[in-house]
Amino acid sequence: MTEIQFRVRYAETDQMGVVYHANYLVWMEMGRVEMCRSLGVSYRDMEAEGVLLIVAEANCRYMAPARYDDEVSVMTKVKRSTTRLLEFEYAISSVESGRKLAVGVTTHIFCNRELRPSRLPERYRNAFGLV
Amino acid sequence: MTEIQFRVRYAETDQMGVVYHANYLVWMEMGRVEMCRSLGVSYRDMEAEGVLLIVAEANCRYMAPARYDDEVSVMTKVKRSTTRLLEFEYAISSVESGRKLAVGVTTHIFCNRELRPSRLPERYRNAFGLV
Amino acid sequence: MTEIQFRVRYAETDQMGVVYHANYLVWMEMGRVEMCRSLGVSYRDMEAEGVLLIVAEANCRYMAPARYDDEVSVMTKVKRSTTRLLEFEYAISSVESGRKLAVGVTTHIFCNRELRPSRLPERYRNAFGLV
Amino acid sequence: MTEIQFRVRYAETDQMGVVYHANYLVWMEMGRVEMCRSLGVSYRDMEAEGVLLIVAEANCRYMAPARYDDEVSVMTKVKRSTTRLLEFEYAISSVESGRKLAVGVTTHIFCNRELRPSRLPERYRNAFGLV
Repeated sequence: MTEIQFRVRYAETDQMGVVYHANYLVWMEMGRVEMCRSLGVSYRDMEAEGVLLIVAEANCRYMAPARYDDEVSVMTKVKRSTTRLLEFEYAISSVESGRKLAVGVTTHIFCNRELRPSRLPERYRNAFGLV
Repeated sequence: MTEIQFRVRYAETDQMGVVYHANYLVWMEMGRVEMCRSLGVSYRDMEAEGVLLIVAEANCRYMAPARYDDEVSVMTKVKRSTTRLLEFEYAISSVESGRKLAVGVTTHIFCNRELRPSRLPERYRNAFGLV
Repeated sequence: MTEIQFRVRYAETDQMGVVYHANYLVWMEMGRVEMCRSLGVSYRDMEAEGVLLIVAEANCRYMAPARYDDEVSVMTKVKRSTTRLLEFEYAISSVESGRKLAVGVTTHIFCNRELRPSRLPERYRNAFGLV
Repeated sequence: MTEIQFRVRYAETDQMGVVYHANYLVWMEMGRVEMCRSLGVSYRDMEAEGVLLIVAEANCRYMAPARYDDEVSVMTKVKRSTTRLLEFEYAISSVESGRKLAVGVTTHIFCNRELRPSRLPERYRNAFGLV
């Protein structure tokens, strides 16, 4: 489990006065990148080596709105990992109130540079608990 | 069922060379607004009158990547409607190849200006087949 | 001079109830792509061939706010063109009222795939009036 | 002068493999909010009280591309302040290399809730050096 914290940007709000819902997917991506880093994997380097993590499915349940300038926490964990795919789970909450704002799940497929499904190379398997 | 078509913007791509996944949720929102318009409901006016359609859940399955300058089609239909909530279903495809790019579902709750759940006012029920 | 028209997306608004200012740069980019297309140049193909148009400077003056669901027009013209750079000028207005919303200018440098400045290849010069 | 630092998000890149240019305006906004906070002014609260800071003009000169996962620094300072308007200046650079990526200027007008120009209320003038 990894946690990131950040402040809601003005750009992320919409005219309802709350965060536009698609931005939660951006936050999940930020959580997942830090999750990988905490496992010793720089997603940037992995991608530069031709191992891409394509989003195959994304789900988000919205429970309470996030607002501009709120401090938000995203907790990320790996839900499932195989040499073909990774599944992440996210809990998004308000740092100040501790209130849960949303939960999400994303499924990813390892692909090569041509965006075709491939297997995670040996050298990365340890990090994702695949031995 | 309503269809919209538009071109992928450069701003919507990411460094993988394809559309960043969160943007599909923006496209679904565009589809849903036109769906409402085709039912005789301007979402803008409805919101101005204090009837807000909050996103409670969003799901997207990605099947093939959309690319910059592609013409994309979003087909939207109402999957379920009650006086409390609306569910929309989306099929996103490439206009040129006809290939399906993604499918999605979003669930929405009617809320008042304070973002508290409320019932859809009588005058809108006809449009959403609620009589 | 080329014109594009489109509707403001909900995602483009912020909590002030108007379009978030950075989105005008996205609209200018859309205008410039259509401008190129009207000159017979597909920016997508040009980029695929290794001729990139990097933004070197962007300026926007905001005169009146655009709002959700408004129909917006972007008029684009080439202000200056050399084999090294292109300058575009934009006028953004409301389709309904005709009111000018913003004006902008962007300057671009031709670059190769390594993002190093280069000259526009011969075969494109005609389109941009460079003979 | 106030500094913020953050990492480039995947969502902020485009298919050129660098940060999409409009996102620099979002970063400037983040810098300006922290600048205000360092002066003792919460922009959120100020806006809630009906004092809005509308963007009247934005300018950005791009010098070197920012890339995904880079740590970026935004230095912000107030360039000019009157009871009618504020001007901010920004220097965006790479934390790792210290290289300057972009410089920008934004001009803002104080407005009321109806987005009409107004004067900065007395109680905020001290913070912005207006006495």
